[in-house]
Amino acid sequence: MIRVAIIGASGYTGVESIEIILRHPGAELTYLTALESECGHAEDVFGRLKGRCDMQIEPLDFDKLTGLADAALCCLPHKVSMGFVPKLLDAGLKVIDFSADYRLKDISVYEKFYDVKHTDTANLENAVYGLPELFREQIKGADLIANPGCYPTGAILAIAPLLKEGLIETDSIIVNAVTGASGAGKNPSSKFHFPNMNENLFAYGVGSHRHMPEMEQIAGEIAGSKVRILFQPHAGPFDRGILSTVYCQPKEKVASEQLSQLYQNFYAGEAFVQICSNTPAVKDVAGTNYCHIFVTCVKGKIVSFSAIDNLVKGASGQAIQNMNIVFGLEETLGLK
Amino acid sequence: MIRVAIIGASGYTGVESIEIILRHPGAELTYLTALESECGHAEDVFGRLKGRCDMQIEPLDFDKLTGLADAALCCLPHKVSMGFVPKLLDAGLKVIDFSADYRLKDISVYEKFYDVKHTDTANLENAVYGLPELFREQIKGADLIANPGCYPTGAILAIAPLLKEGLIETDSIIVNAVTGASGAGKNPSSKFHFPNMNENLFAYGVGSHRHMPEMEQIAGEIAGSKVRILFQPHAGPFDRGILSTVYCQPKEKVASEQLSQLYQNFYAGEAFVQICSNTPAVKDVAGTNYCHIFVTCVKGKIVSFSAIDNLVKGASGQAIQNMNIVFGLEETLGLK
Amino acid sequence: MIRVAIIGASGYTGVESIEIILRHPGAELTYLTALESECGHAEDVFGRLKGRCDMQIEPLDFDKLTGLADAALCCLPHKVSMGFVPKLLDAGLKVIDFSADYRLKDISVYEKFYDVKHTDTANLENAVYGLPELFREQIKGADLIANPGCYPTGAILAIAPLLKEGLIETDSIIVNAVTGASGAGKNPSSKFHFPNMNENLFAYGVGSHRHMPEMEQIAGEIAGSKVRILFQPHAGPFDRGILSTVYCQPKEKVASEQLSQLYQNFYAGEAFVQICSNTPAVKDVAGTNYCHIFVTCVKGKIVSFSAIDNLVKGASGQAIQNMNIVFGLEETLGLK
Amino acid sequence: MIRVAIIGASGYTGVESIEIILRHPGAELTYLTALESECGHAEDVFGRLKGRCDMQIEPLDFDKLTGLADAALCCLPHKVSMGFVPKLLDAGLKVIDFSADYRLKDISVYEKFYDVKHTDTANLENAVYGLPELFREQIKGADLIANPGCYPTGAILAIAPLLKEGLIETDSIIVNAVTGASGAGKNPSSKFHFPNMNENLFAYGVGSHRHMPEMEQIAGEIAGSKVRILFQPHAGPFDRGILSTVYCQPKEKVASEQLSQLYQNFYAGEAFVQICSNTPAVKDVAGTNYCHIFVTCVKGKIVSFSAIDNLVKGASGQAIQNMNIVFGLEETLGLK
Repeated sequence: MIRVAIIGASGYTGVESIEIILRHPGAELTYLTALESECGHAEDVFGRLKGRCDMQIEPLDFDKLTGLADAALCCLPHKVSMGFVPKLLDAGLKVIDFSADYRLKDISVYEKFYDVKHTDTANLENAVYGLPELFREQIKGADLIANPGCYPTGAILAIAPLLKEGLIETDSIIVNAVTGASGAGKNPSSKFHFPNMNENLFAYGVGSHRHMPEMEQIAGEIAGSKVRILFQPHAGPFDRGILSTVYCQPKEKVASEQLSQLYQNFYAGEAFVQICSNTPAVKDVAGTNYCHIFVTCVKGKIVSFSAIDNLVKGASGQAIQNMNIVFGLEETLGLK
Repeated sequence: MIRVAIIGASGYTGVESIEIILRHPGAELTYLTALESECGHAEDVFGRLKGRCDMQIEPLDFDKLTGLADAALCCLPHKVSMGFVPKLLDAGLKVIDFSADYRLKDISVYEKFYDVKHTDTANLENAVYGLPELFREQIKGADLIANPGCYPTGAILAIAPLLKEGLIETDSIIVNAVTGASGAGKNPSSKFHFPNMNENLFAYGVGSHRHMPEMEQIAGEIAGSKVRILFQPHAGPFDRGILSTVYCQPKEKVASEQLSQLYQNFYAGEAFVQICSNTPAVKDVAGTNYCHIFVTCVKGKIVSFSAIDNLVKGASGQAIQNMNIVFGLEETLGLK
Repeated sequence: MIRVAIIGASGYTGVESIEIILRHPGAELTYLTALESECGHAEDVFGRLKGRCDMQIEPLDFDKLTGLADAALCCLPHKVSMGFVPKLLDAGLKVIDFSADYRLKDISVYEKFYDVKHTDTANLENAVYGLPELFREQIKGADLIANPGCYPTGAILAIAPLLKEGLIETDSIIVNAVTGASGAGKNPSSKFHFPNMNENLFAYGVGSHRHMPEMEQIAGEIAGSKVRILFQPHAGPFDRGILSTVYCQPKEKVASEQLSQLYQNFYAGEAFVQICSNTPAVKDVAGTNYCHIFVTCVKGKIVSFSAIDNLVKGASGQAIQNMNIVFGLEETLGLK
Repeated sequence: MIRVAIIGASGYTGVESIEIILRHPGAELTYLTALESECGHAEDVFGRLKGRCDMQIEPLDFDKLTGLADAALCCLPHKVSMGFVPKLLDAGLKVIDFSADYRLKDISVYEKFYDVKHTDTANLENAVYGLPELFREQIKGADLIANPGCYPTGAILAIAPLLKEGLIETDSIIVNAVTGASGAGKNPSSKFHFPNMNENLFAYGVGSHRHMPEMEQIAGEIAGSKVRILFQPHAGPFDRGILSTVYCQPKEKVASEQLSQLYQNFYAGEAFVQICSNTPAVKDVAGTNYCHIFVTCVKGKIVSFSAIDNLVKGASGQAIQNMNIVFGLEETLGLK
């Protein structure tokens, strides 16, 4: 039984992680922490947990943590996380970190997009990007996993086969994505106030979203060369899911059937990536760790569609998939 | 052309009022005010108004107001309003006040439910409750209209004929109502944060909602005797509308057809109250000043259903209906 | 490992049952059936199941079924079910039937409300009403379970302690409930067409809903005397959940604290019924088998609120809870 | 007073047109028609119209029509419309046709995409494409207006200045658009059944949507050369609105400020097109005839965003804007 601590348990990815671990046959919750102002009995913090999780969410105490957990799901925000991760590692835990702090290998890019000095470059070097379908071998032996961003997960899975096979112009990629509103996190804001967000849809982060350099870095690693991505996020009036519609220019004419076959082969044996024969729907993956993909050619361009649940495959589910790999459990345990 | 000032223009009832007046053939906006922190060009405060309303929303300046407007739609919150209304009246304006400050005639009830001392009892005495279908004659000559609460509008219209005719036990009334989320106002909160409110439904204000004494007062005036109402509000995942389902005990057995006929007669000639032959739907009245009502008997009880738009018939539309009456315009002008 | 056949797998309760059994550690799917026109690979019938359920949904063949399953979750519609259940029992299966065909003990009531002759009165007599919190002992030994209706589940759990203790006037009960739109089933209709149902809320089935006699029968069994219930259902713009707001008249004055204590005691040890200290929210129980209840006194009346997921505690989850009981498994297996 | 007949009044664009004309100070409804199976009193066909429109919707009778109306808003479906329009013209009416039957000038393209022989090529030749911001002069004198498709309206307005100025590579345009569910029309279907469409988002019509050739034709007319557009529509869980995100390759480097200025100039004096300083939101234009546009440069590409209400600027509102122009009324009458 893997003993799991959730650091930063009071947000949406925290409660999602709690619910998955509660059903997980090979893991158990042993420690839940949050900022003092957000602590309390788990049932009181989240009405959903009533009768399901008789634990306190308490301020993080490293003395208490030592010996109490084998793995930490670190759900802290960007910039905050890197202050805690070194101590979690020192306490002997395997750490799956949900923030962006260990994703970007180029410190200058990190510091530009997150506008803060990186304070843990030592661990950054050893962190492994936790997209199992692409980096499973490195994940196996890692102590620190940088759990991917929600948008990069959907976008990269949608185009990895094309990048790997060198089929596309690497400066032609446009990722048009729409996220559900849970992507904005739990803190109330005017934009996501129900009477404003309901029946609404808008683009944001034009040219400046922090997931853009993350996509470019990982895409570049897969392609083996620099990749340039125009990433345009939107927010829509639903809770869960990201639909990514990715447009790119093939180097040479390619048939839809070839693409479909390529994707089938590339993701053969992958439990959580499903190649569909038609466009995917976010509702089909909501609440699951699955990614549905459809790829085709339209007017000389390749269009690839992917759907994930931003809180599951885009966050907590993928983290636990990573945890399963790190601890040598069946990768799908607790996630099917 | 009635010149209209909107005091407190930066909230949901403010912009709703602005949009109605913009289409109103007999009225024009001359002054828009708000708290300093919420001021700016109307287009910037409300994206909806882009190209439609070339006016500033500015801090209220009584010197400027004098001579600039004939009517004030006062959209300020409870407790705040009574600090401004006397000055608006002194400036010679007819005032339609959206707050509760001039609705409750019994000061002790007001002070108990709103937990504040009433500071303008002089005007309170002369204020007329602005439910035109019941108090049209008084409204005609009034200087100060207390625009009804959204819930009381729906509930009272649903049972007024029964009260007037003395058909029901006046201590048997249960008002079960569900409001759309715009009823919570524009300020972000955790409960109404989209990912929390979406796909949700809950009851609130159990036994303590401030619209309960308001309903009881008006129902009592109509019945000519004390009325006791158990009012239970709920909030649902939609923008606009209140559906009230009202249960009451008839004094004597009564047939559904009789009730329907009674309601048809009671509301004959009322443009905005429509008696339906089946249960009303909030979507049918959304964006309109109409109230749809269906009344019937079930298992010995009378059940009356009413649907209104909480921001229109439940607020801004009704205010402008009152304004039309006060100024001798056709009552439906700008509202059909 | 309990081998489970799902009869009528192509609807909403079918796929919900499939998903629960897929995660259930003590049960496995062995047979999925549907009308010929709705058959196909499970993945093609339900996009959600892609990669998760490599089975065909096929027309029911009793020869094939025999020996292939221990339990049947019979998700057929009312009136259709009683044509299949006798054969499922003859094939030696324990049957949990989702329809109303085995719920109403008074055949004349059944025949009046469902407008059809009952063709399996023999099995009707032995069927046990599958509300585990109230009828657990009878369920244990039963071959045929009549899985309760969604509305009756929420309503009865909300008032069972009051009925059992004889605290309320049994002709005073009003059940005001709002269901999510999945309650209407999978067949498209004008009322539930997205652009009609979205942003809408309405009452239906006034005085005539088929769950009314079901509530009255079960309530009567609990109270030990005839109970009369005015049940008014509504449909709202969300997928899952039923919020029941139940009003009743206490025989004698009672304090809210007493009621709360009574409920705590009555449901002590019940995993899936949680007594809350404030009004429940449907989103907290969505996707779970839990029922959240809050009870209090308002103006001399008792008001009890309950929230369930209509597809889980109101259908598939409760069915599997019943299955667990019948087969001697831990009652919460696969459901926490 | 322009007398308006609405042909095909029983659908979403029909009722939208009715509501706009009811508020229109220079037009009145004189005739409403529909298929026999969808006829009845307007109030019974649309609950929204109760008390607002005391007219029958009746089967179309050309004898009755003659002399009764000056303009026909023809809301019939594609392929059906061309059977009626010639007779409406013969009856002396100005016709604004909502279908695609008179939009595509190349008959072979029409016949390929709509899979039917065109039966009214004579009138097709004289039909004017009713996008006032681009073709106002031609509209003025026209007898037959082909009211634009909803997607083309949003997409063309988003890029017209770029096409007109020859700033972009005309084979580089990608239109990624998301429509609200009312775009699917009023007929219930599985995809748009509330429990399926709610909380969902998906792409459809990949490479095959009928609005693609329409966009290409109009874009080509504006550019003065062949234009190639990759158009990818999506459907989202809201009633009204289309958000178009258009990507294109500038011929030469261009600054965001230049683009913004270009658009300001191009649409100067246009009441219904508003150039924004940030990304538009569909909720800001819902229920209005406005189009909000934001244009900028990202990573060497131009990205232009536009938001319209698909039922207003994308259908009924634009039709009435056209009607105003044809009859020499103020263009914005009834639409502000």
